[in-house]
Amino acid sequence: MFYHIHTGIYHTQMENIQMSPKEELLERFLDYASRGDLAKVSGMISHSSFLVNESGENGWTALMLAARNGHTDIVDNLLSNGCDTFLVNKSAQTAYDIAKFWGHRHIARLLAKTENKCQRILPSDRMEEHENYFTREVFNRMSEKRSDSKWLEAKQSSPDTVFILFFNLNPLVSASEESKTAHPGIKLCRLDASSVNKELLQKSGTTVIFLGVEKQRSSSSSPPKEGNEPTAWFALNTDDNPMDHLQLTNPNSFFLKPPMPGLLKLSEAEAGIIAQASSVLAWHNRYSFCPTCGSNTNVEEGGYKRTCFNKDCRSRQGIHNTCYPRVDPVVIMLVIHPDGNQCLLGRKKTFPAGMFSCLAGFIEPGEAIEDAVRRETEEESGVKVGPVQYVSCQPWPMPSSLMIGCLAVAMSTDIKVDEKEIEEARWFTRQQVIDVIVKGTKPAFTMPPRQAIAHQLVKHWIGMSSNL
Amino acid sequence: MFYHIHTGIYHTQMENIQMSPKEELLERFLDYASRGDLAKVSGMISHSSFLVNESGENGWTALMLAARNGHTDIVDNLLSNGCDTFLVNKSAQTAYDIAKFWGHRHIARLLAKTENKCQRILPSDRMEEHENYFTREVFNRMSEKRSDSKWLEAKQSSPDTVFILFFNLNPLVSASEESKTAHPGIKLCRLDASSVNKELLQKSGTTVIFLGVEKQRSSSSSPPKEGNEPTAWFALNTDDNPMDHLQLTNPNSFFLKPPMPGLLKLSEAEAGIIAQASSVLAWHNRYSFCPTCGSNTNVEEGGYKRTCFNKDCRSRQGIHNTCYPRVDPVVIMLVIHPDGNQCLLGRKKTFPAGMFSCLAGFIEPGEAIEDAVRRETEEESGVKVGPVQYVSCQPWPMPSSLMIGCLAVAMSTDIKVDEKEIEEARWFTRQQVIDVIVKGTKPAFTMPPRQAIAHQLVKHWIGMSSNL
Repeated sequence: MFYHIHTGIYHTQMENIQMSPKEELLERFLDYASRGDLAKVSGMISHSSFLVNESGENGWTALMLAARNGHTDIVDNLLSNGCDTFLVNKSAQTAYDIAKFWGHRHIARLLAKTENKCQRILPSDRMEEHENYFTREVFNRMSEKRSDSKWLEAKQSSPDTVFILFFNLNPLVSASEESKTAHPGIKLCRLDASSVNKELLQKSGTTVIFLGVEKQRSSSSSPPKEGNEPTAWFALNTDDNPMDHLQLTNPNSFFLKPPMPGLLKLSEAEAGIIAQASSVLAWHNRYSFCPTCGSNTNVEEGGYKRTCFNKDCRSRQGIHNTCYPRVDPVVIMLVIHPDGNQCLLGRKKTFPAGMFSCLAGFIEPGEAIEDAVRRETEEESGVKVGPVQYVSCQPWPMPSSLMIGCLAVAMSTDIKVDEKEIEEARWFTRQQVIDVIVKGTKPAFTMPPRQAIAHQLVKHWIGMSSNL
Repeated sequence: MFYHIHTGIYHTQMENIQMSPKEELLERFLDYASRGDLAKVSGMISHSSFLVNESGENGWTALMLAARNGHTDIVDNLLSNGCDTFLVNKSAQTAYDIAKFWGHRHIARLLAKTENKCQRILPSDRMEEHENYFTREVFNRMSEKRSDSKWLEAKQSSPDTVFILFFNLNPLVSASEESKTAHPGIKLCRLDASSVNKELLQKSGTTVIFLGVEKQRSSSSSPPKEGNEPTAWFALNTDDNPMDHLQLTNPNSFFLKPPMPGLLKLSEAEAGIIAQASSVLAWHNRYSFCPTCGSNTNVEEGGYKRTCFNKDCRSRQGIHNTCYPRVDPVVIMLVIHPDGNQCLLGRKKTFPAGMFSCLAGFIEPGEAIEDAVRRETEEESGVKVGPVQYVSCQPWPMPSSLMIGCLAVAMSTDIKVDEKEIEEARWFTRQQVIDVIVKGTKPAFTMPPRQAIAHQLVKHWIGMSSNL
C-alpha cells in the first residue's frame, strides 16, 4: 500500500492490479520521493536512471513531489542525477514554482541555482532573491478583470469571497491562536459577503478595492472541479464606524490603531495582503480630487483608477499618472567602511533610545537608484559613497513606499550629520552588529526588527563572510 | 620643463630651483603619471616605491592624475604596485571620484574593482554600474538650499546663473556644433538672468524650479577662489509663448515639440539635466490642485513641494506624498529562455514596423520589483518567470518614470500575448539579437536605440559570454 502525501490517497495492491511492471516501479519511486526516503530513491535511480524524469498522476515528477514536501536531500540527489528542472505538471508548474509556493525557499534556491541551466543564464552567482516582510504575493492580481464590472459584482456577492475591512485605514484584526506563546501574533479578520451588507458597500465614505484571487494551490494534484473558481478577495475602507453594518462572528476582533508596529505581527502571507490593500486604500484616502483641475473623481477599475468627473479636464486626454495609485521609490543603504569591517548606521530623534538603522531617503525625479544612494548618504552623514549594489526590496505600506535596499562602499570616512534629518550617525564594527543581530549579552545599540529591510541588509552583510 | 596637463601650468627648472631632491623626484613622477608615460612611471617606482602614495600640489597623487587624464595603463600599474585608492585630494576627491567625473568609466570600474578593498567589501564580483542615458548627475542638487528663499532669489538674479526654458514642457534647444556630422545633435539653450526678465518669472503660468549647482570641477588643482561659487541652474516652464519676454542671442534656437525622440540627441550630461527638469516641471503641470481637498496649491521649496492653500486641509497635518513630485517605478526585463540562448521580446502596435523591445510595466502598490517582473511577463506574454536579477536603472522623464532593468529566467516557454498590451512576443536567438546590436547585414528585426535601457539590457546579456 502506498500513501501519496500530496494527494492523501492510499493505493492498495488491488488498485495496482492492472499496472505494468514499469508503471509499478514508477509509482513506487514517486512514493519514495514524496516521503523523503533518500536511500530508496537513490537505490532505484542507480538501477533505473530513466525514472528521474518520469511523471505520474497529473504530471508530477519525483522532483516536484520532493519539492512539495521539502525534502532537500532528495532534490539534491535528483539534481545530481541530471533530472530536468523545467518539466511542468498539468497545472503548468515547475518544481521551482512548487517549492516557492510552499515556502521551501532553500529548495527553490537550489532549483534556481544548482546544476541546471540558470547558472549560465544569469551572469552572477548571486542569484538569491531575499524575501522580505510585506513581499509575499498570495494573490493573482488578475488586472484583466478590473475593468469587468459584472465579474467584480458577481464576486462581491459570492459566498466564497473574502473581505478585509479597514476603518479610517486601520485594519480589523484579532489575536491569532498562537497569541499565548512568547510571540503573540495577530491575524486579519476575514469577512464574507453576508457579513458585509450592501448598505456599507454603497456608503459615500466607503472604498472597495479588488485584491485578486488566491493563487491555485499546487498541493492538489487533481484538476480544479468545474465551476470551482479560486477565492476572490476585496478590501474595504470606511470613514464611518462600520460596526453597525457588520455581523461579526469573532467578538475578539478590533481595529488596529495605529497600524504600526502591530502590523509586524501578521504572518508573512497576511503581511503581503496588507502591503497591497493598505497602499491602495491610503491612496484613495488622500486622492479624492483631480490634481489637474480640482474636480471630484470617480473610482474605477476595481479601485486601481480614479477618473476626473470634469469631461473637459486634460487628465482625460491620453493616459496620465494623476489617475493611478502612487508608489514612492526609496533608497535604503548599508554603507560599508573602506576597511570592509565597519558599517554606517544613523538614528533619527524619533527612534527609540539606542536604536540605529540604515540611512534612507526618497529617490528624486530624474535620479538613478545608485545616485540617490550617494546623494542621500552624503546629505545625511557627509560620507562619500562609491560603488553601490542592489540587494533586495520591500514594499512599505505607510503609505506606499517601495524600499530599494543596497550595499554601498564608502569613499570617505568623516561623519558630519545633517541635524535636520538625523541626530547621530556612527561607524559600527562587524562584531558590534553581529552582537545585536544574534542578541549577544551586551549589544552596544539596538536595530529595527527582522521585518524591516534595514535589519535584513545588515544580516546580508555580516552573512557574507561569517555565514551567520 | 614639466607640463601639468591638469593645471595647464609649465614648470621651468628656474621655478624648481628651491626644491629638495625628493620633491623634485616626486614632481617628475607626478608629471609622468599625468602625461601617461608608462615606462617612466614604472621605472621610477621600481627604484622609489614610496612615490606611489605621495601627493603633490593640492593633494593630487599619481593615481588621481592618471585617473583624471584617462591613462588606464598607468592606473593599472599603480594599482599593482599597491597604491592606496582611498587617498583624497584637498577637494576630498578620491581617484575614483575623479575618474567618474571625467567620464573615464573603465578606470572608475578598475578602481572600484581591482586589488583594492572594495573587492571584499561587496559580496558579488559583479560590481559594475551601468551608466544609462538620462542618469548622468551633473549637479549637486543642494536640497538644503530649497527652503532658503533669500539664497534662491539671489541666485536667480546672479549673472552667473543658467536658466533652461520650456514652453508647454517643450525645451528650448538649438542644433549643436556637430550638427553637420553623421549624427546631428541638439543642445539645451542656456539663458542668463538678463535674458529672462522678471515679468516672465512672475507670470501666473510660469513655474521655476531650482536644479542645483554644478559639481566642482576636479580638473583644477587650485582651490576655488574666494566668493567664486559654483554656477546655479534653474528650469522654467511657461504656458504662454515666452518669446516676447526673451532676449535670445541664438537665432537658431527652437522649442523641441514633441520632446521625443529629439531628446535622445542631447549629450549625456544634458540628458541628465533634462531628466530632472522635465520630470519636476511635468509634475507641476498636472498637479496644481490639492488631491486631498481640491483647493489650489502653492509652489514651495525651490519647486519640490506644493502646499495646499486650504489651512484646514488634512494634507497640511503631518507629511504627505500629495505635496511632493511623483516618481513612478517601472520594471523592464529581458526574459531569457530556459535554454540560455534565446530571449523574449515583444512589440506594441504603436512601435515602428519591425521593432521589438523588452517587456515592461508599472510596479503596483505593495509589490516587490521581482514580483512585478514575474507578474508583468506572465500577463503580457503568458511566460512564467523564475529568478530575477537587477542590472541597472534609468530615469525616463516622460513624465517621471524610473525604469528598473532586470534579467530574468523563464520557467515556461509557450507564448500567449495579452493583445490589449502587446501585438506580438517572440523568442529571438542570441545570434539574432547580436545581428541587430552590431548592425549586421540582415537583422531580423530592429530594437530601440542605445539610449534606451532595453537596448542596454540586451547588450548586457549578449556581452556576458561573447564580450561584444
